[in-house]
Amino acid sequence: MISHDEALTIILDSVKNTLPIEKIKFTESLNRILTCDVFSDMNMPPFDKSAMDGYACRMSDIHNELKVIEILPAGKIPENIISENQCIKIMTGAIIPEGADCVLMVEYTEESKPGFIKFTKDSTKSNICTLGEDITTGDKVLSKGIKILPQHIAVMASVGYTKAEVAMKPKVGIISTGSEIVEPDSIPEKSQIRNSNGYQLIAQVERAGGIPNYVGIAEDSREATYNAISTALENNDIILLTGGVSMGDFDMVPDIMKEIGIDIKFRKIAVQPGKPTTFGTYNGNKYVFGLPGNPVSSYTQFELLTRPLMNKLMGSEEIFTELKLPMGAEYRRRKSERKSFIPVIIKEDGKVYPVEYHGSAHIHSYVFANGITYVEIGKDRLEIGEMVNVRQV
Amino acid sequence: MISHDEALTIILDSVKNTLPIEKIKFTESLNRILTCDVFSDMNMPPFDKSAMDGYACRMSDIHNELKVIEILPAGKIPENIISENQCIKIMTGAIIPEGADCVLMVEYTEESKPGFIKFTKDSTKSNICTLGEDITTGDKVLSKGIKILPQHIAVMASVGYTKAEVAMKPKVGIISTGSEIVEPDSIPEKSQIRNSNGYQLIAQVERAGGIPNYVGIAEDSREATYNAISTALENNDIILLTGGVSMGDFDMVPDIMKEIGIDIKFRKIAVQPGKPTTFGTYNGNKYVFGLPGNPVSSYTQFELLTRPLMNKLMGSEEIFTELKLPMGAEYRRRKSERKSFIPVIIKEDGKVYPVEYHGSAHIHSYVFANGITYVEIGKDRLEIGEMVNVRQV
Repeated sequence: MISHDEALTIILDSVKNTLPIEKIKFTESLNRILTCDVFSDMNMPPFDKSAMDGYACRMSDIHNELKVIEILPAGKIPENIISENQCIKIMTGAIIPEGADCVLMVEYTEESKPGFIKFTKDSTKSNICTLGEDITTGDKVLSKGIKILPQHIAVMASVGYTKAEVAMKPKVGIISTGSEIVEPDSIPEKSQIRNSNGYQLIAQVERAGGIPNYVGIAEDSREATYNAISTALENNDIILLTGGVSMGDFDMVPDIMKEIGIDIKFRKIAVQPGKPTTFGTYNGNKYVFGLPGNPVSSYTQFELLTRPLMNKLMGSEEIFTELKLPMGAEYRRRKSERKSFIPVIIKEDGKVYPVEYHGSAHIHSYVFANGITYVEIGKDRLEIGEMVNVRQV
Repeated sequence: MISHDEALTIILDSVKNTLPIEKIKFTESLNRILTCDVFSDMNMPPFDKSAMDGYACRMSDIHNELKVIEILPAGKIPENIISENQCIKIMTGAIIPEGADCVLMVEYTEESKPGFIKFTKDSTKSNICTLGEDITTGDKVLSKGIKILPQHIAVMASVGYTKAEVAMKPKVGIISTGSEIVEPDSIPEKSQIRNSNGYQLIAQVERAGGIPNYVGIAEDSREATYNAISTALENNDIILLTGGVSMGDFDMVPDIMKEIGIDIKFRKIAVQPGKPTTFGTYNGNKYVFGLPGNPVSSYTQFELLTRPLMNKLMGSEEIFTELKLPMGAEYRRRKSERKSFIPVIIKEDGKVYPVEYHGSAHIHSYVFANGITYVEIGKDRLEIGEMVNVRQV
């Protein structure tokens, strides 16, 4: 059986091309992946700029009485040049007038007589932001591969980058398998349960920046499963199946994947939960996951395997991010021959606490979880204070 | 001047009522705030269920040769009752047939003769998930006030909660003030800069779960500012203005807010950046922020003041969350009379690093930041290894 790390490597290595790009309004680009570098078309600040509301003057004159020759708001070009013992009342963000080499804060001035001021406090600070001090024309201001956040949208606005080049969202087809599964708006009969996995995956795909396409429930028959996969392959980049990958007589997903022409890369991972996770590629540019039918396994393996694939397909610089944090409580397990992923809460104390967890069908274990940590093969416990890697979810 | 904590308390205390609720499809409820408790309409599992693919039989018979009397997939009602030396081949998730008290894994069996099996390994585990072991009918499965995540959508699906009761999204009107401001698709003339703040706020509102309504740029005139605020008040729960709150001659926002009838609660906070932040309420149910014109100040005070207000208005159980983490590098500042908020990167080592930061106009300081930490009044440094509170952004 391959390790989880090997499984992830196989998945990521199977990506030959990233998804096509599209150009969208920059205002609609929040959380998308930027696919090119962005450069500044101007200096920032674009001129010597006042950092204060105050009086622009010559530093050599600050102990004298100064004549106020102009009032200068931001956005206006100064009409005058500052000479000896003159000043211009200036607002934050306005252009420093020619002749001035400092701005003294309005709080430290008094009117000595109408039209004249004196400074009440000494200063050696210029309070000028000089042209190009933050950014020079042509500087790279945003890098290819970032996930676009509000502050990046501000940067785009400031350099006039109004059409953002981003990766198309991966289209993800979702199929729930199993004759015992009914839709959430049904009342299950004895022996049936509602489809929770499929809807969990829809939301996971959405959160990960993809477009979920729900195909439906395929009953446990060769034909239904075959048709569902074939249909899903037509319109999606990634197909997720849940259920049908174990060792039961009706777990026919991997065989049907093969029959359809999907190149199966692995059928099992030495991991808990999620051992029977199956993965294959189709036509070199479609990716098919057979995820286990248990909601915790399916949730976990989506986050750990599918989401990194989606990030790679979008050209993201971050395939996944983990944070090293200390355990706040101990964790023990009986067996240690598989890598084990456990739902945890990262609390405000910055420590990691395992949540109550009854096994892979225990859908409620993740209700309070905001992270996933892991225990490596051969290890049967995590001690209090031990540093662990956590993925925030 | 009030402290930042006092400012936040004033803002949160001004909320008398949360926003109205709406009922939406549960599949569209990702990231919304749930406004009622959700209870289970069934036991989970709803019946004694096989946790394995294997053979259901009587534990007292496991050393004998057993006759296979039925093959039982998940979703089907068993047709037979298990008697002595009989078994039913059973799939994961299927109902445990009457008479059986354990399931032995398919991996540990062999066919002894056609239609009969023997176990190759001893076992004392039942491999049965008993009825109601995870959840009993009527149990609370989700609590009012949570932000809905994919795992919560799975829980909703499993209990048939298909119409989710959530808080309406707060409508937030955004006004940029300043005659020097032009829209991002313009080429700024000398003395002008592009509007980055307004678009940053739009994205911040969106990320915080609100509906941004961009009102536009109001030039530095009494009339333009008055009209923009009045218009925005008609259709929004919260109004954000950026700029016009400093001490300059054209910083008329607080005065006009007063004139319109907004009850100003504070005009300054002992904080850096963001000192001139102004806040008031209108009609007891609308909230108006005059945010500073600098993009870093505006970004920071939105996250620290407006976002908690939005959470409270939506009835969220979490007003804000901070994480205690160690500093990975030291931070120093010259003055210490205000609380200071600094952009930081939380790196994979779980430590906090300040980003390069030239001051409140330095829009690029936040490009790499994924957190905000703070230095309290009277403190002028953060040492390596010191535990600090970080808000993830």
